[in-house]
Amino acid sequence: MRRSLPSVEQFVQGIRAADRVLLGQAITLVESARAEHQVLAQAVLAQVATPTPNTLRIAITGAPGVGKSTFIEALGMYLIERGKRPAVLAIDPSSSISGGSILGDKTRMEHLSASEKAFIRPSPAGDSLGGVARKTREAMVLVEAAGFDTILIETVGVGQSEIAAQRMTDLFLLLLMPGAGDELQGIKRGIVEMADVLVVNKSDGDRNTLAQQAQGHYRNATHLFPAKSSGWTPRVLTCSALENKGIAAVWEAAEAFKMETEATGFFTKNRQIQAQYWLKESIESGLHTHFYQHPQVRAKLAELEPEVLAGRLSPTLAAQQILQILFPK
Amino acid sequence: MRRSLPSVEQFVQGIRAADRVLLGQAITLVESARAEHQVLAQAVLAQVATPTPNTLRIAITGAPGVGKSTFIEALGMYLIERGKRPAVLAIDPSSSISGGSILGDKTRMEHLSASEKAFIRPSPAGDSLGGVARKTREAMVLVEAAGFDTILIETVGVGQSEIAAQRMTDLFLLLLMPGAGDELQGIKRGIVEMADVLVVNKSDGDRNTLAQQAQGHYRNATHLFPAKSSGWTPRVLTCSALENKGIAAVWEAAEAFKMETEATGFFTKNRQIQAQYWLKESIESGLHTHFYQHPQVRAKLAELEPEVLAGRLSPTLAAQQILQILFPK
Repeated sequence: MRRSLPSVEQFVQGIRAADRVLLGQAITLVESARAEHQVLAQAVLAQVATPTPNTLRIAITGAPGVGKSTFIEALGMYLIERGKRPAVLAIDPSSSISGGSILGDKTRMEHLSASEKAFIRPSPAGDSLGGVARKTREAMVLVEAAGFDTILIETVGVGQSEIAAQRMTDLFLLLLMPGAGDELQGIKRGIVEMADVLVVNKSDGDRNTLAQQAQGHYRNATHLFPAKSSGWTPRVLTCSALENKGIAAVWEAAEAFKMETEATGFFTKNRQIQAQYWLKESIESGLHTHFYQHPQVRAKLAELEPEVLAGRLSPTLAAQQILQILFPK
Repeated sequence: MRRSLPSVEQFVQGIRAADRVLLGQAITLVESARAEHQVLAQAVLAQVATPTPNTLRIAITGAPGVGKSTFIEALGMYLIERGKRPAVLAIDPSSSISGGSILGDKTRMEHLSASEKAFIRPSPAGDSLGGVARKTREAMVLVEAAGFDTILIETVGVGQSEIAAQRMTDLFLLLLMPGAGDELQGIKRGIVEMADVLVVNKSDGDRNTLAQQAQGHYRNATHLFPAKSSGWTPRVLTCSALENKGIAAVWEAAEAFKMETEATGFFTKNRQIQAQYWLKESIESGLHTHFYQHPQVRAKLAELEPEVLAGRLSPTLAAQQILQILFPK
């Protein structure tokens, strides 16, 4: 980041003009832990946020090795051909530990990362899933303001990140491997049930038969799942991202999903529920941070904690005395 | 509860005199959600809490059907014979939903519940595990103040309650069934690893051989577990609570645990860490409650939430405006 930061106006104009440098800088601000960066980031967000952006937000997940990067590359290039502007973001709370963020290595999406029509951003670092996910969600608001209309949120497919991704997307897409059942794929049943579109990737060469078997297996499985509140019936497809086969059918399913859920009103309603969730999440997280940074709270905690440890003061009573600083009777 | 409540002084004197009626009423106050009850309960707690009670707190868990009530009855009666005063409390967050609290039916502990030397209290109701556990912990402080020296905290053995129980006890005792492995017992491996004393119950009649097999299985398993921070090596025993066999050896293990961990200083250190945990838990829970009850917060939330839902205001910015009420710049 430059020493002298652009102004709110410069950011707003730059993002609206799809200036990639300013967009990238604005996302860096969103991701920053520094207070002055956050103030600037929120001022920018407040001005550029589109009330009801006409975009499609897709969560893409699957076990490691399923070919997520290749699939996103293929889908992204297909979208560009269709006149769309895809943006690829990620949620991976492990990236700050492992150092190896998903999407960190853009060379895995060679063509997409070279295209002026697409935007790719690795997962932000953070010490909690909530923090990482909040940053990704705000980055999404910025890329939508810059005119990107199809947002692909990649997750690693092994943990809680999928739930965070679902809470900021319209459609949940699960990539699967040919042949193997849920357990072999390292996918929890709960994740499979979340999927709106299930895609068996690597349906190429010798694996065609296995892919069709997996398709049959998952078709049967989805029939047994409880009905979705969206009213949408999950579709199970096969594709080969490597050979660029079956990508059109995936996109067709995504567009059908959008059309159907917009017609029933679910699409809009779901985004409202999501906004409500993120409001609550932002409040809880901010409440926690502000409270423990409050000088009087810190002082009182430092004074009472030894009393609690020594057993001279009950934890409940100490908590009450500390809370009275902010909530006097 | 009576219309006119006893005073703080009456409660304090009554509890110190081991008055069972006043002790029971004080616990009811601790369990009450009403603000005036809480004020009174905390005043009583503050006065009666013993800084470093010379008690032994034991978590007792096991899958349904393992014979927890029979075991607690047998252990409790054994303790009374040895001049101890046992108190039995429980953590069961499901009790408010199912209506059927563990320990709710005291007839399952016929002799123990009839003894003047023992005190039995069913699980408090509550809408969260944190709330239920906090109430059980405060009830424990009260029964210790009334002179009960061996506290048995029963949990159902199927969920997160075990972790809450571990956070308020010195020793973790796991009851097991003869023969069956962890999975058949419905016990998670993590729970097995938490145990300081593992007891295969129902080692009677035809089941003796199966019980010894289970003992061997769990002895092998405990050797593979990571070393405990207490330095204690878990003991695996068999018993028949029904035939009152093997109870003395269980108690011997518990006393050996106390002696050994007191000698190393772990016993005291662990209780301090627990107090620190409950301080934090009480703060977080109180912070949440007070915040959402704050009149200005409620008004601002009601004003801004529709803006967020309509997409005219970002969740983050709305959260900032709400938090500014309590944390002005």
